[in-house]
Amino acid sequence: MTGQLDRSDPASAIAAASSRVSNTGRWGEDDVLGTLNFLTDDLRAAAASLVKRGASFSLCQNFDTNGPQRGWRRRTNPVHTMLSTGLDAEFGPAEFPHGLGGADDTIAMPLQCSTQWDGLGHIFDHGLAYNGRRAGQVVTSEGDLVTGIETAKHHVAGRGVLLDVGRAIGEAGELADGFAITTEHLMQTIEVQGATSEVRRGDLVLVRTGQLARVRRNGWGEYAGGAAPGLSFTTADWLHSSEIAGIATDTWGFEVRPNEFDEAFQPLHQVAIPHIGLFIGEMWDLEALAADCAQDGVYEFWLSAAPLPVTGAVGSPVNPLAIK
Amino acid sequence: MTGQLDRSDPASAIAAASSRVSNTGRWGEDDVLGTLNFLTDDLRAAAASLVKRGASFSLCQNFDTNGPQRGWRRRTNPVHTMLSTGLDAEFGPAEFPHGLGGADDTIAMPLQCSTQWDGLGHIFDHGLAYNGRRAGQVVTSEGDLVTGIETAKHHVAGRGVLLDVGRAIGEAGELADGFAITTEHLMQTIEVQGATSEVRRGDLVLVRTGQLARVRRNGWGEYAGGAAPGLSFTTADWLHSSEIAGIATDTWGFEVRPNEFDEAFQPLHQVAIPHIGLFIGEMWDLEALAADCAQDGVYEFWLSAAPLPVTGAVGSPVNPLAIK
Amino acid sequence: MTGQLDRSDPASAIAAASSRVSNTGRWGEDDVLGTLNFLTDDLRAAAASLVKRGASFSLCQNFDTNGPQRGWRRRTNPVHTMLSTGLDAEFGPAEFPHGLGGADDTIAMPLQCSTQWDGLGHIFDHGLAYNGRRAGQVVTSEGDLVTGIETAKHHVAGRGVLLDVGRAIGEAGELADGFAITTEHLMQTIEVQGATSEVRRGDLVLVRTGQLARVRRNGWGEYAGGAAPGLSFTTADWLHSSEIAGIATDTWGFEVRPNEFDEAFQPLHQVAIPHIGLFIGEMWDLEALAADCAQDGVYEFWLSAAPLPVTGAVGSPVNPLAIK
Amino acid sequence: MTGQLDRSDPASAIAAASSRVSNTGRWGEDDVLGTLNFLTDDLRAAAASLVKRGASFSLCQNFDTNGPQRGWRRRTNPVHTMLSTGLDAEFGPAEFPHGLGGADDTIAMPLQCSTQWDGLGHIFDHGLAYNGRRAGQVVTSEGDLVTGIETAKHHVAGRGVLLDVGRAIGEAGELADGFAITTEHLMQTIEVQGATSEVRRGDLVLVRTGQLARVRRNGWGEYAGGAAPGLSFTTADWLHSSEIAGIATDTWGFEVRPNEFDEAFQPLHQVAIPHIGLFIGEMWDLEALAADCAQDGVYEFWLSAAPLPVTGAVGSPVNPLAIK
Repeated sequence: MTGQLDRSDPASAIAAASSRVSNTGRWGEDDVLGTLNFLTDDLRAAAASLVKRGASFSLCQNFDTNGPQRGWRRRTNPVHTMLSTGLDAEFGPAEFPHGLGGADDTIAMPLQCSTQWDGLGHIFDHGLAYNGRRAGQVVTSEGDLVTGIETAKHHVAGRGVLLDVGRAIGEAGELADGFAITTEHLMQTIEVQGATSEVRRGDLVLVRTGQLARVRRNGWGEYAGGAAPGLSFTTADWLHSSEIAGIATDTWGFEVRPNEFDEAFQPLHQVAIPHIGLFIGEMWDLEALAADCAQDGVYEFWLSAAPLPVTGAVGSPVNPLAIK
Repeated sequence: MTGQLDRSDPASAIAAASSRVSNTGRWGEDDVLGTLNFLTDDLRAAAASLVKRGASFSLCQNFDTNGPQRGWRRRTNPVHTMLSTGLDAEFGPAEFPHGLGGADDTIAMPLQCSTQWDGLGHIFDHGLAYNGRRAGQVVTSEGDLVTGIETAKHHVAGRGVLLDVGRAIGEAGELADGFAITTEHLMQTIEVQGATSEVRRGDLVLVRTGQLARVRRNGWGEYAGGAAPGLSFTTADWLHSSEIAGIATDTWGFEVRPNEFDEAFQPLHQVAIPHIGLFIGEMWDLEALAADCAQDGVYEFWLSAAPLPVTGAVGSPVNPLAIK
Repeated sequence: MTGQLDRSDPASAIAAASSRVSNTGRWGEDDVLGTLNFLTDDLRAAAASLVKRGASFSLCQNFDTNGPQRGWRRRTNPVHTMLSTGLDAEFGPAEFPHGLGGADDTIAMPLQCSTQWDGLGHIFDHGLAYNGRRAGQVVTSEGDLVTGIETAKHHVAGRGVLLDVGRAIGEAGELADGFAITTEHLMQTIEVQGATSEVRRGDLVLVRTGQLARVRRNGWGEYAGGAAPGLSFTTADWLHSSEIAGIATDTWGFEVRPNEFDEAFQPLHQVAIPHIGLFIGEMWDLEALAADCAQDGVYEFWLSAAPLPVTGAVGSPVNPLAIK
Repeated sequence: MTGQLDRSDPASAIAAASSRVSNTGRWGEDDVLGTLNFLTDDLRAAAASLVKRGASFSLCQNFDTNGPQRGWRRRTNPVHTMLSTGLDAEFGPAEFPHGLGGADDTIAMPLQCSTQWDGLGHIFDHGLAYNGRRAGQVVTSEGDLVTGIETAKHHVAGRGVLLDVGRAIGEAGELADGFAITTEHLMQTIEVQGATSEVRRGDLVLVRTGQLARVRRNGWGEYAGGAAPGLSFTTADWLHSSEIAGIATDTWGFEVRPNEFDEAFQPLHQVAIPHIGLFIGEMWDLEALAADCAQDGVYEFWLSAAPLPVTGAVGSPVNPLAIK
């Protein structure tokens, strides 16, 4: 369908897609959960049976100064500093009685600097936030007063499915930067991978492009905001009709970059977050999990990925655990 | 056994307990996981079967400025600030094309400010860190170079057991500040609660004192560092012999405060972290989970509590999910 | 004149005062300096002749965690952390060749946490900023795009005058909390102090209440936002007609607290900053300077108090130096 | 003298220079001021007479994200964030009565990120800090317990002298990267500039290389830590014998880079800070002042450059004001 996009008119494409896929009002006017509503207790209970061997895979990059950020929108890499160290304990003045020593630390970081969830207050369409609310009434300098990420803190655990598009249709397991993953590519990947990768209502879908493996070899380069493989704008309809609870990729920005219009910035976000109410994860490290899935042919698993409940946050770092 | 402690001599008591319960070298000289070694894939797989209804409970307090910290050791409450808001998107200069608006945010916080795991580099005994290493060779101003919390990022998911000591033996569901929970109290709680609360090798044990419920009613007061119910120093032997993978409480400091010696500071930490290699969680919110357990009489569940992998951190915020 | 204020109607009082004292447009529609326009090179040159002995007085409180802030509006005390220490240099792994060792550090702090200047973008009156601009067009999440404190970085040095109202009319050198300093009190202080304390066009006026001395004895208490001596709302006319370049006090909030209306918050700020365009300093430490002035009877001096030019800041920490 | 340096043996050169120029013990064993001891009240009083026109020049770069830092040693550029904005005041929920609106902000930054003073606790020689103290007893994770920059807060104001080496002996006003400024070059510059640039005891000397002008044209590039013009290691003797109170340059690192030894890192710092006790300023913006001096031929002026007194800091941002 990419071929059918009018590259010169993102605004119309966004408007049309938004009206086709809107979940506004679907769960009531007070709703703050969006697509997490699809992830019911029943589905969560069923998902637990996917744990067979007990093997656990963190899908989180480490948070440190050696990260992809380059300062765009004041997004730095995390700055972790020590408040006291083992050297203080061993050689400094005694702080505590009976030989006790302690180390403490602190961090300063943008909430979108590495492996994360976008909250529903992260993106707006013409001043509208999720569920038809005015952006300025939702997110002020006090934070997201309505859909702050803390509202999702109980919910994000259920069936995870890996769609390793990089392995299924890429070269040497990786998609090239600028590769737009269409719904067809997703279906093709499911077919290649087999029955365990069928996507169902309430799923947490992980899409591996292989870009993270590439930047690990070559250096971060323009990983944060540069060219990347990713979801095509045209997947908006599938993102809606599949009734998934959330989706995450191994890239900075989830959707293909450069975007599929002449002058555009993250148009799929503009449809997916305020209109679908979709939870989007970015910069997840899917490498170890994907290698395991390739080996045993099982692409479904238990996934716990509860955001850190920073009150009023429009995004959150997360250490997702996939268990097979 | 509290009565048998010589209140005037914490150093000797710590030395004696440490030699009884030491796991130094137990998992090899390069080990960085400590008691997480008890949590094997097999046990993790078995634990998944505890998910019945799919009900999910976040055990995390929200991270915000309305927290318990009062600045001790430069531990402030989290400071969450917006880099851009819905007001900017709605009324400010347009930053993006086609009506896209975005909100971003950042946080600065001590890693021990709220619901957290202590890492193995958090506490030292006479300049010794976990597994017999010199504190100054483990934790420098660069962070924990050996047992940084990121080394535990794959591991912390398995069987959780709630010991609601507050409900079992407290008044109106709460233990008084200064109440020292002994091994006997723990056994008594298990007996009251029934078979589902039996503690086994590899478990993640949650001890509810009820103090958090109390400060919620009365205000934070001295929650951060003041008097509190908590584990007695005398539980060190049980913490070791039970071969649990980790333990967490709803209090600031895990162990009873004031501590059970005339002049002391967190003596049980000094035994538990560097000698047992035990993962200790603090300030967990067990209220909703405990209410549910009291109602259905089931005190075991699946627990995902993977730390945020901040490279070199000696502690980590965490959003633990208990699923029943 | 305090007696004449209608305590029930701050809005009308503010509107009336604002229209009497407005400097809007006085220095052109592009002006960003406000009352700093009064501080000309000629006046600055003349002020240098006030340096006689070369004695230098810092009027700055130290920036550290032992400060007055209690978290109101996320204003914490500064958090200063080390990136590397002398212990690292002496006992840690060698970072540099030939025996070089280095220590580095970092700070996180609200710009209004201690000794500071309010910038012209700090306060608005009904959505209007200084010089008739719309608040939302001046200060966005990107900062103050027009009157950021960096625009004042060259200017703040000239004649300083201390009005030690605490010593002149207080008890034991201090005014009580809630004491409203009127224009009459200021004039009385000048008369008591003598000719060197005459206030002239372009001056930087320092008003000592003695409250800082009191909290130094008694603990911070409610210094940040509680009751305090300070300028009466009725001084607005004098602040305007005196044509001073700036004014600073030893209190948190410059004006008397509780404010002189039944329900109000810093009404004098609302007149002084957006309408007069006045630079207001707060939490200055005037103790040593005041003791010296009391001794030699000279209340005028050279004052350098250039703000730290944080781009887009609405306030700035400052280390003011008074030289006699 | 550069030609006489044995490029293969920085350690011996440092040791030899250190023993020649040591001020250890010169001002008593408790001294914390180092070369600021040279800047007496008498000299300060005399310096005030250098103010003629009252023209004021800030020598400070603005502190913002568009800075030179690239993350080396976790030195980021400043991150300035708003706690509330004019948009909140104009369009958000009313926070205050009677139409008052307010904007607040916060900053996180390394203290060495831009225009700054190095404190005496910033550099060590083989584990020794200024005045013969052990580095680990001076600077712990609590900060510099002895020579914290706050100890200098009253002192740094006096006679400033600009040595515009870039204009005097450079091409088009700039020295090339890697150009080592020797004592001879400094003398030559003084001769070219004339009598007002004579350097005397207690002076604050500003050395302009022109590199900052160059990076302003070309982009920051490797300004932070890359090749740069700067003081030759061989100037150590002059830095000592001249009895100056402090010295600052328009470069990141004060001394020439690459350093004048095969494998070395900032060897002149290692002599100047712990042995001479010299206050060194870096990244000062001397452009406007230098242009003025070139025009009127007067290279001496009043200079106020008091550090921001962050308790225990080993360096400090500063907004130096030169007044002619």
